[in-house]
Amino acid sequence: MRLVTYRATVEAEARLGALVDDLVLDLARFGAVKGVPFPATMLEFIDLGPQAVTIATKLIAECEGLFPLGTTIPATNVKLLAPIPTPRKNIFGIGLNYTEHVAESAKSLDTSPELPRQPVIFSKPPTTVIAPGEPVRHDANITQQLDWEVELAAVIGRTAKGVAREGALSYVFGYTVCIDMSARDCRRSGQWIYSKGQDTYAPMGPCIVTADEIPDPQTLDLSLTVNGVTKQSSNTAFMLFKVDELVSDISQGITLQPGDIIATGTPAGVGAGMDPQEWLWPGDTIVATVEGIGTLTHPIVKA
Amino acid sequence: MRLVTYRATVEAEARLGALVDDLVLDLARFGAVKGVPFPATMLEFIDLGPQAVTIATKLIAECEGLFPLGTTIPATNVKLLAPIPTPRKNIFGIGLNYTEHVAESAKSLDTSPELPRQPVIFSKPPTTVIAPGEPVRHDANITQQLDWEVELAAVIGRTAKGVAREGALSYVFGYTVCIDMSARDCRRSGQWIYSKGQDTYAPMGPCIVTADEIPDPQTLDLSLTVNGVTKQSSNTAFMLFKVDELVSDISQGITLQPGDIIATGTPAGVGAGMDPQEWLWPGDTIVATVEGIGTLTHPIVKA
Repeated sequence: MRLVTYRATVEAEARLGALVDDLVLDLARFGAVKGVPFPATMLEFIDLGPQAVTIATKLIAECEGLFPLGTTIPATNVKLLAPIPTPRKNIFGIGLNYTEHVAESAKSLDTSPELPRQPVIFSKPPTTVIAPGEPVRHDANITQQLDWEVELAAVIGRTAKGVAREGALSYVFGYTVCIDMSARDCRRSGQWIYSKGQDTYAPMGPCIVTADEIPDPQTLDLSLTVNGVTKQSSNTAFMLFKVDELVSDISQGITLQPGDIIATGTPAGVGAGMDPQEWLWPGDTIVATVEGIGTLTHPIVKA
Repeated sequence: MRLVTYRATVEAEARLGALVDDLVLDLARFGAVKGVPFPATMLEFIDLGPQAVTIATKLIAECEGLFPLGTTIPATNVKLLAPIPTPRKNIFGIGLNYTEHVAESAKSLDTSPELPRQPVIFSKPPTTVIAPGEPVRHDANITQQLDWEVELAAVIGRTAKGVAREGALSYVFGYTVCIDMSARDCRRSGQWIYSKGQDTYAPMGPCIVTADEIPDPQTLDLSLTVNGVTKQSSNTAFMLFKVDELVSDISQGITLQPGDIIATGTPAGVGAGMDPQEWLWPGDTIVATVEGIGTLTHPIVKA
C-alpha cells in the first residue's frame, strides 16, 4: 500500500489517504462505509500496528478499483503533505553510511576516512520536515554551503527495544524518501544538528510504501539531480549498515516508537565532495528519487 | 509559580498541578471552580501563553492558602513525574558551555581546548526523560563510562524564530533541572546523540518554576553529588552562552516551539574530567540541585 497525507483543498485538514492508481482513497471515509474504524491521520494508523495494513489492503483489493462515492479524489486534485507532517520526535539520521560517501566526506569535511564501526547517528527536529514540492529555505546569513543528500527513510511500526538484527525489519512500517539537507558550514564542534536541523531541511514523501511491498530494502536505486544534472546515483545495496542493523543498533539504547523515522544515509555525490565544491543557491531545483517509492522535487529559495 | 506534573495514585492519569506550600493544587479542577478553563496537562498550559501564568498566579493569591475542597492534595501524597513527561521533540542539549568544563573535556575526551565560538548543540530523544526519583539504567553491554552532568533547563513558552538576544528571555516559559546523563564511550564519530540519548538519560524536574520568578537565570547555584560527595558545584553565571543567547542562536535556524526544552550545559566536575576518571555504577546515587528550582535524586540500577 502507498500511503499519503493530503489536503483536499488548501484549507482542508490533513488526512490519511491511500494512493490507488490515480486516486487518493480517504481511508477513514472508506472505512466508515465498510464498517472499519480507520483513523484520519498517518500516525494513528501506524499506531494500530501491521494488522491495519493487512485489513486495508484486503478491503481495497475487494473493491477492484471501484470505490464508494465520496471516498476518493483524483490524485492530481490534492495537495500532498509529508507522510508524517509532524514526527513525534527528531528524525534519526545516519551519517557516513555508504562507503564512497565516507571517502568523499573525509576529503572535504572533518570526518575520518576509516569506515565507522558503528552507525553514526544524529537528529533532525520535526520542524525540518516539509511537504513534497515545498521550497527549501536558503538563509545566506547562516550558510554559504547548502548541500543535498538523497536518502531512503524507514518508518518504525512497532515499539522496538533491544531487538536483534534478525527479524528487525518486522519493526518497520514502511519506507519513504528524505532529502537530508545539510549546511556544511553550520557544523559546530563536530555536532551536526544545527547543520542538518534547520527549518525546511527535511523534504519528505511523496508517500510511505508499506513494508510488505518492499521485502528487501537493500535493493533500491536512489538518485538526485540538481537543475537536471545527476549528482548522486547509487543503490541501497551499498549501505554499510543495513536497515535491519540500524533498527537493531539504535534500539539497544534508545526505544524506537511507532512513527519514528530513520533516514538511512546518503551515497556519494554530495556537493561537498565535488572538486571544486558545489553548493545550492536560490533558484536551484533538486529532484530526489528512490526506486519503488517516488520522487521529490524542491526549489531552493531565498529565506 | 511552581508547576508540576503528578499522579494522585499509581494508576491515576498524569495531571498539571501547582505547588503551593506543601500542597499540590490541581489547576484544571481549581479553574473549574473559579470558572477558568485551565487545561489538565503541562503542554496544554504552556500553549496558552504567559497570560495563563498571570491568571493562575492571581487566582491562587486570592485564595490566601485556602483552596476549594477537592482541588488540592498534600504534596507528600503524590507521585511527581517529569514536568513534561513526553516532550514533543528531542531536548536540545548544549555542550561545552562552561569554561572549566571545556578544559576538563579537552583533557579527557575528544573535544577542543578552545572555547566554542557558537553554541554546541546536540539532542536527547523524548524517551530519555524520567521522573524525579526514577532509576537511571546502567547497561553494561553498552557502556562502562556512565557520567553525570547537572544542568539548568529552559522551557520555551512561545514560538521563536529569528529572535534577537535582547528580549529572548520573554520566549522562556520557565526553568527546570535536567541531569544530562552521558555514556562517554558511546560517542560515535564525534556525534553525541547515542552517548546522551539512551533511555532514562534525562532525569528532569521536580518542577518548572515560571520565568516571572526567575528574572535572571544567570545567577543560580547548581551542584551534583555522587553518593553524598560533591562533584559539581558552580553557578549559571559561568555559562559561556547565556540562556538568552541560546534561545536567539538556535532560533536563527530552527523554530523553537512551546514546550521545547534547552538543557543549557554543565559546569566542571564530571567523571570524565577526574584523575583517575570516575564512572557511575549500579548502586550509586546522584543528587542534582539548581538553586530556586529543586533537587533530583536518582539511583543508578543495572539494566
